[in-house]
Amino acid sequence: MGTAEPVTPVGQAAEGELRIGWAARSMPVLAGIAERFARERPLDGLRIAACLHVTAETAVLLQVLREGGAEIALAASNPLSTQDDVAAALRERGIAVHARAGADLQTYYRHIHQALDIAPHLVLDDGCDLVNVLHTERVELLGDVVGGCEETTTGIIRLRQMAAEGALRFPVVAVNDTRTKRMVDNRYGTGQSTLDGIIRATNLLLAGRVVVVAGFGFCGRGVADRARGLGARVIVTEVDPVKALEAALQGYQVEPMSRAAELGDVFITVTGNRDVIRAEHFAVMKDGAVLANAGHFDVEIDVRALRELASAVRHGVRPNTDEYVLPDGRRLLLLAEGRVVNLTAAEGHPAAVMDISFSAHALAAAWLVTEGRGLPPGVHDLPSAIDAEIARLELAAAGVTIDTLTPDQERYLRSWRLGS
Amino acid sequence: MGTAEPVTPVGQAAEGELRIGWAARSMPVLAGIAERFARERPLDGLRIAACLHVTAETAVLLQVLREGGAEIALAASNPLSTQDDVAAALRERGIAVHARAGADLQTYYRHIHQALDIAPHLVLDDGCDLVNVLHTERVELLGDVVGGCEETTTGIIRLRQMAAEGALRFPVVAVNDTRTKRMVDNRYGTGQSTLDGIIRATNLLLAGRVVVVAGFGFCGRGVADRARGLGARVIVTEVDPVKALEAALQGYQVEPMSRAAELGDVFITVTGNRDVIRAEHFAVMKDGAVLANAGHFDVEIDVRALRELASAVRHGVRPNTDEYVLPDGRRLLLLAEGRVVNLTAAEGHPAAVMDISFSAHALAAAWLVTEGRGLPPGVHDLPSAIDAEIARLELAAAGVTIDTLTPDQERYLRSWRLGS
Amino acid sequence: MGTAEPVTPVGQAAEGELRIGWAARSMPVLAGIAERFARERPLDGLRIAACLHVTAETAVLLQVLREGGAEIALAASNPLSTQDDVAAALRERGIAVHARAGADLQTYYRHIHQALDIAPHLVLDDGCDLVNVLHTERVELLGDVVGGCEETTTGIIRLRQMAAEGALRFPVVAVNDTRTKRMVDNRYGTGQSTLDGIIRATNLLLAGRVVVVAGFGFCGRGVADRARGLGARVIVTEVDPVKALEAALQGYQVEPMSRAAELGDVFITVTGNRDVIRAEHFAVMKDGAVLANAGHFDVEIDVRALRELASAVRHGVRPNTDEYVLPDGRRLLLLAEGRVVNLTAAEGHPAAVMDISFSAHALAAAWLVTEGRGLPPGVHDLPSAIDAEIARLELAAAGVTIDTLTPDQERYLRSWRLGS
Amino acid sequence: MGTAEPVTPVGQAAEGELRIGWAARSMPVLAGIAERFARERPLDGLRIAACLHVTAETAVLLQVLREGGAEIALAASNPLSTQDDVAAALRERGIAVHARAGADLQTYYRHIHQALDIAPHLVLDDGCDLVNVLHTERVELLGDVVGGCEETTTGIIRLRQMAAEGALRFPVVAVNDTRTKRMVDNRYGTGQSTLDGIIRATNLLLAGRVVVVAGFGFCGRGVADRARGLGARVIVTEVDPVKALEAALQGYQVEPMSRAAELGDVFITVTGNRDVIRAEHFAVMKDGAVLANAGHFDVEIDVRALRELASAVRHGVRPNTDEYVLPDGRRLLLLAEGRVVNLTAAEGHPAAVMDISFSAHALAAAWLVTEGRGLPPGVHDLPSAIDAEIARLELAAAGVTIDTLTPDQERYLRSWRLGS
Repeated sequence: MGTAEPVTPVGQAAEGELRIGWAARSMPVLAGIAERFARERPLDGLRIAACLHVTAETAVLLQVLREGGAEIALAASNPLSTQDDVAAALRERGIAVHARAGADLQTYYRHIHQALDIAPHLVLDDGCDLVNVLHTERVELLGDVVGGCEETTTGIIRLRQMAAEGALRFPVVAVNDTRTKRMVDNRYGTGQSTLDGIIRATNLLLAGRVVVVAGFGFCGRGVADRARGLGARVIVTEVDPVKALEAALQGYQVEPMSRAAELGDVFITVTGNRDVIRAEHFAVMKDGAVLANAGHFDVEIDVRALRELASAVRHGVRPNTDEYVLPDGRRLLLLAEGRVVNLTAAEGHPAAVMDISFSAHALAAAWLVTEGRGLPPGVHDLPSAIDAEIARLELAAAGVTIDTLTPDQERYLRSWRLGS
Repeated sequence: MGTAEPVTPVGQAAEGELRIGWAARSMPVLAGIAERFARERPLDGLRIAACLHVTAETAVLLQVLREGGAEIALAASNPLSTQDDVAAALRERGIAVHARAGADLQTYYRHIHQALDIAPHLVLDDGCDLVNVLHTERVELLGDVVGGCEETTTGIIRLRQMAAEGALRFPVVAVNDTRTKRMVDNRYGTGQSTLDGIIRATNLLLAGRVVVVAGFGFCGRGVADRARGLGARVIVTEVDPVKALEAALQGYQVEPMSRAAELGDVFITVTGNRDVIRAEHFAVMKDGAVLANAGHFDVEIDVRALRELASAVRHGVRPNTDEYVLPDGRRLLLLAEGRVVNLTAAEGHPAAVMDISFSAHALAAAWLVTEGRGLPPGVHDLPSAIDAEIARLELAAAGVTIDTLTPDQERYLRSWRLGS
Repeated sequence: MGTAEPVTPVGQAAEGELRIGWAARSMPVLAGIAERFARERPLDGLRIAACLHVTAETAVLLQVLREGGAEIALAASNPLSTQDDVAAALRERGIAVHARAGADLQTYYRHIHQALDIAPHLVLDDGCDLVNVLHTERVELLGDVVGGCEETTTGIIRLRQMAAEGALRFPVVAVNDTRTKRMVDNRYGTGQSTLDGIIRATNLLLAGRVVVVAGFGFCGRGVADRARGLGARVIVTEVDPVKALEAALQGYQVEPMSRAAELGDVFITVTGNRDVIRAEHFAVMKDGAVLANAGHFDVEIDVRALRELASAVRHGVRPNTDEYVLPDGRRLLLLAEGRVVNLTAAEGHPAAVMDISFSAHALAAAWLVTEGRGLPPGVHDLPSAIDAEIARLELAAAGVTIDTLTPDQERYLRSWRLGS
Repeated sequence: MGTAEPVTPVGQAAEGELRIGWAARSMPVLAGIAERFARERPLDGLRIAACLHVTAETAVLLQVLREGGAEIALAASNPLSTQDDVAAALRERGIAVHARAGADLQTYYRHIHQALDIAPHLVLDDGCDLVNVLHTERVELLGDVVGGCEETTTGIIRLRQMAAEGALRFPVVAVNDTRTKRMVDNRYGTGQSTLDGIIRATNLLLAGRVVVVAGFGFCGRGVADRARGLGARVIVTEVDPVKALEAALQGYQVEPMSRAAELGDVFITVTGNRDVIRAEHFAVMKDGAVLANAGHFDVEIDVRALRELASAVRHGVRPNTDEYVLPDGRRLLLLAEGRVVNLTAAEGHPAAVMDISFSAHALAAAWLVTEGRGLPPGVHDLPSAIDAEIARLELAAAGVTIDTLTPDQERYLRSWRLGS
């Protein structure tokens, strides 16, 4: 099974290998798992279809899965994030990669179909598009599938909805919901890389700016913390009163978007919902306001409404920055066309972040092989022991030692009869 | 049913009323619930036995339960925290209070028995001592009990252990595990009041001090954040690798206690476990090190070992501060005898914190009345809708407005078929 | 020269000694200086009149000056902060103390006169009242005076004004302006103790509250940092655009008081100016707003206007808390009668803070003895070498090691001819 | 007077104009000054030689000076930071630009000479190289010079040394020492852009990493705050005990470099001194340690020693990242060859930062024209009224309002006779 893309020059593959090598240095947990997989071959003879961002870190994961014995086909989960040099390097290594930077929507879905052609036993997804295609257009392949892993919050929402409607046909591990992944990826990874993307795109000084963060989930709180850490005054918007209360207790100003729109210098959406910033908000924003989306899909800022409102659009006033001029002269700056700004304007998560997330994928894949047949269709948590193992490996790699319980302490925690 | 304590002078009750009145001002959520309870009388004819800290905030809760129609008997969950003036005021109001500041262990358990004499339909507990007595020494009363609420992490651990052993006989709502309670009480309440207790006891300048926080659960992270917020350099110890990793990712130094013991100026235990600081640690501490416990029970610092090691003890070198002189001349300062420092050396949680926590008790009690008979014995979560309602009331009291989903947004969240 | 106050019971002096002993433990820098003074006797035969807060830390300073050979008379710089037990202990030690907690204004000035009766060679002042009396009512004593030290920002402002008008007759070292003092005392000391005072007075949960800090000088920034560190959302008011800009760049919301008054839950004045919060501001505040002053004088909140506006005043609703009920029913809570809240409602600066500040006094006094006759009247900085020495001693006491320049590095810093 | 560089293609100039236009948007203070200068022409007929980073922001400054009537020649203060497209655009505008990205040392000095050929009345310098050449090799031009401005800490150190030796021949305004400049540029600008440079070069996740900041001056504290704000655990090294104490009081761990070298994951030098990290430190660093310099000159990391120690060097393992492999296999990563990382690996200060700094240059130039002849040679502060004006303009541009003193308050501040 070959790739549909034209042959890639050697030079590009070499550049891709350089990137992959760099990423691998910051992925010590996955390196440890690779050693174990090479020894134990837990994925021997299995076929995996993956729909993931085609980046150097993904390449490191795929290599680990191959060490474990798997055959792999890869499609891109977002055409804008595809690193063509990495794709080239992977092809040279013999992995079927169906992806090209900037592919259009039709090509995007064609690539997913091509990845599914491998007739997978396991699927790795990032946003649920591959699982969706599998359940709607490639149902003939469902029989072989033992289980899957899903990377994103958005994907989990869609999968739970499928499960609630009885449409999901195999068990999926919510890699996104593991404690380590949530913590490292959603919070610290998205936090740093989102601000990184905004700074690369605009070179704005954030100290003293009013940054509006829409959404205070794991990702939103990471973004808010980093914006504050860079000296910004942060305003949070939310629809969930519990999250809104937490934001307030952390000293953030909480406002509805209708009010925040008047106050913000920079807006960052990270809600998992659509139209979080829309026409009524553009109408009251300050001249020069910057709009960025850190959510998975490009629906959080209503770009269509912005385009309709604007009397002129200047593309590329900075890299990844378009300027929308409103009839009254105010200029709004849309980053990355409203697509996920950390992947488009920066380099996505640092490799150290993906090390955690992809270690969960690798261990979840091995776990599904032994346990998957016994699991009902639906969204499943990764066993917490696997989660703890990832954290333990990560701490060890950083040279951090922690305490262990003494026998007395273990006994104490087990006993409920001891009182005041 | 009367109180076993001697009649209290009027003056003390008046002081108690002053305290209760002050607390009530910072408890707007409970005030709203009181209005509803007075109207709907959800607890009409029910008897409640409560084992809670006898403080002004508890008094406000009990009043709300009475507005709802309940008859109440109260014992103290910790003799050191009992505010005798509040107890006096409650007795004047006609509530049976079995508590006295500084009561010994025997009296403590006698008070619990006296509270149970009410033959409760509902029990409110803080640490599981009342529920434990009920299941071991007062089993004849179990038949009437519809359900209970538990306030603390420690209590939940004991209840889950009871449930796992099949010993728990009625449903208990883990008030401690509600999102709002965890957030406001464990994290922000314990955080502020623990540091408050340490400062009142020692008047140390925390800026530049090395503060060791043992345990990075909800409470521990609150304590760590506040210590950092006061300018301390914080070192965290943990036994759970996932929590240890989170501490590291927030920029805290993570060390085993054996190493932290050498570095710390102030030690705060908040683990829920015993002997977290013990002889081997005292042996290497700096002269002047301060030892404080913020966990529920006074077992986290091994005070017995400290006493055995010391060549001299000077009590009360500062309020709530005892000095243990070691044979080599080093002096260690133990606060509040190793008991929970925020209650002993400060005033415990601010009323605003207890407003959240006690609102969950009040709403959980009402919910148990309608739903309790249908619930199996075991530890149950408070329905998240009740949780959200508490957050909503709290935000409203603070004048904070949040967003609501548009119909399009609700539809979007429900739909999983929309893709990239 | 004896004290005018009645004989103090032994018990009180003993309690004062306990306090002084505790303070001395946190004052390692002064302890080092004491050793040197005992050896070198730099103040032999000199008389010192001091007008300082009569606290345990001051007692440690006076003891050091005595070790250096001085005879001392002490008056209180603020009657509300006088610790009578410390005064008693000092008298037992043979120091003339003219101070009593809660003395009225007439007594306050009588005490200053009594301290001046010593006919000082050196004066130590905290707010410039003693120096002012000396220049206006006791000019006959000016001939003997070699120089003085001033502790506060407020005092420095008054002294510079005197100098500008040609009224100041001897050199005064601006202890307040030393880098170490500014840093440790104004910023970290005032920051922690101000919030401590507010929490002790109100037991409010600060997380999520809007705290308005009026003034962003060294003290104000310390207060703002600590309020933020406790989870508050901080709004800063300023009259100086440079300071206002700095506040904004640190992510604080900056507003004029007219707007902040509507938003705040807690107000803290720390400007050195009068009427910072006045009738027009009380008029728009929220019900339950808390008013505290952290500036030297009780003029920053216009208490007279508040009293005139109020339809009722309830004193002592909490310790150090009075409630002013406005005609429309709103209740404003004034802490410590508008006097400096960290001294009145808490214990003032931690001893570690005063260690820095009082070390500067001690070293400045010794320096004035050798250099004072050669200095013109006016406000003088402490030589930076003395300042650095204090920091070095403090770091050493905390076990912190720092780098030293290599010879190459010293050479490099001296040379300007080396280019790109 | 023409440029010595080859003619630049139009396309490059157009790209430069785009950059300049973007920068101008974030420079509202300079825009206001431009209007005033166009009206008042304070620099009419004057010649200015500038040695500054050739960037878009500099272009905006030069345009303002031209609006004021000046003729200008520009050399680069650092060949690595020259934006050739901006140089091209400036040349099209008719400004003599002597600069080219990547010019060697000989060319660098030739460019400075060419800029001096204009026979300046005023000089603007960034690092003191132009002033140095003027005083050593072009003394014939000194007669016309009215004064100068210096941008950097490093330059000020050199100028003060020159002044101390009697070598400086005209007054220089220490633009670097203005309060607004120090604050915005040294602290917030350097802070953000240094971390930005490191992230762009390495894509490391900083949360949980140990970042060693050498130097805790204005720049160093900005770098430390931003590193902490990104979740790093920060260790500070210093030679000045006062600065070291301040770092400790802000909760930073303070260590000598010999110890920090063992602990750090990332090292950032910002001291203004040489050999801050040298052979003895490389010897103990962890595998993978990252070395970056944020100081003006590339002398802070002893790159020569690193080169001599290494058994192999791999250039460009990431953009601006070279890997030095030590004989024992450890790999150290040197960013930007040890040159200033925020200019080399990122885009230098955001335009908003330079707006403050360059507004001081513009107003200082105008002030020198009217006051310069009356000033003695030496380093002079910018009058604080000009400083305050810049802050006021900046706040106004951000829509921030501040308080003004009432007449009573002004009177109070002037009076020293009011006491307690």
